[in-house]
Amino acid sequence: MNMHMDMDTNVTYDEFLKTLASKAPVPGGGGASALTGAIGTALCSMVANLTIGKRKYAEYDKDMERILSKAEALRCELSELIKKDAEVFEPLSKAYSLPKETEEQQKEKDRIMEEALKKAAMIPLEIMKKACDAIALHEELLIKGSRLVISDVGVGVILCKAAVRGASLNVFINTKFMKDREYACKLNKDAEDILAKSLKRADIVFESVNSELCRGN
Amino acid sequence: MNMHMDMDTNVTYDEFLKTLASKAPVPGGGGASALTGAIGTALCSMVANLTIGKRKYAEYDKDMERILSKAEALRCELSELIKKDAEVFEPLSKAYSLPKETEEQQKEKDRIMEEALKKAAMIPLEIMKKACDAIALHEELLIKGSRLVISDVGVGVILCKAAVRGASLNVFINTKFMKDREYACKLNKDAEDILAKSLKRADIVFESVNSELCRGN
Repeated sequence: MNMHMDMDTNVTYDEFLKTLASKAPVPGGGGASALTGAIGTALCSMVANLTIGKRKYAEYDKDMERILSKAEALRCELSELIKKDAEVFEPLSKAYSLPKETEEQQKEKDRIMEEALKKAAMIPLEIMKKACDAIALHEELLIKGSRLVISDVGVGVILCKAAVRGASLNVFINTKFMKDREYACKLNKDAEDILAKSLKRADIVFESVNSELCRGN
Repeated sequence: MNMHMDMDTNVTYDEFLKTLASKAPVPGGGGASALTGAIGTALCSMVANLTIGKRKYAEYDKDMERILSKAEALRCELSELIKKDAEVFEPLSKAYSLPKETEEQQKEKDRIMEEALKKAAMIPLEIMKKACDAIALHEELLIKGSRLVISDVGVGVILCKAAVRGASLNVFINTKFMKDREYACKLNKDAEDILAKSLKRADIVFESVNSELCRGN
């Protein structure tokens, strides 16, 4: 199996799911989080697209154009991160099986592992940042988006939140094994900051949508 | 645009995301939730696949075979629900634009709308049930799955949780407009029961994984 081919955006989602479900080293939790973030971000675009040009929301047309353009960029970046996550995982999975019989081999293995771990940790951190940016767009859509598609803001924001949390585990599993603890703590701190910044805000958006829908029930 | 073609599992995930992001009536939040549930469920299969046959986990081989078989079935069902969600939304979106100039037209529109809403609400409820079943598989994988892929259990469970919550909004938006309040309340109750049953359990699995990963940090 060619893992880069499998990560191509030309695969069907059914094939993507099958490869994810298989023993294949990639995609894994990082790619799954990035795709979920991309789905949540696509819902930002959808809500903006269905608000633009509606007389009732004319005052927000410029905001919607800005949100749409930002959401399209974020979705492309998250799609790209699915591929990048697969690319950085490949050297890491190879490093695990390097020999460590002599002291020299062990040293070399440690060096290669450390480098691979550092590269592998950066991608889920990027995924977290992009999904967090999409949460901010949903926050704005909650106020300015068409009420006809308000449930899609709720779905979108909860998917982006899951993407942030899912990707955070992929930062932590890589930093856990780093020997350079200063660098590891710095990345963990970055991840914790994004979690602190985004989770509560996502919940507020979701709960607002939920209350709006349940008011009549 | 042929919406059924777009919902085919033969579309690339990039095309799926583009159609989701567009003005097209489907897919929407329901399909997005089902796909996220399918991604989270694929991670059940992956963890089971990477645990089966490992000497260290030999005692769980039979459990893993059972979990794998159940996860594969759930993923297929969730994929199928992406298509079904698109199918039930079509008559609903057509019903919205029926004429209501005469009393008779209004009555007929109400009748068609009610029927379409009832059909449309059933699908996200099914999505919730399937994603909830996948959360139970992740609960078991947390105990019995290979520690090497424990982060994927955490990612999988948080994606399934998001699928349950996302789909719940799609139940509530349909029940909100039903005239048959008894039926609406029954569906809302079913959705609330699944939320009550699954969210807390998903959080416990996620937090266990999170603590396991952060112990060394």
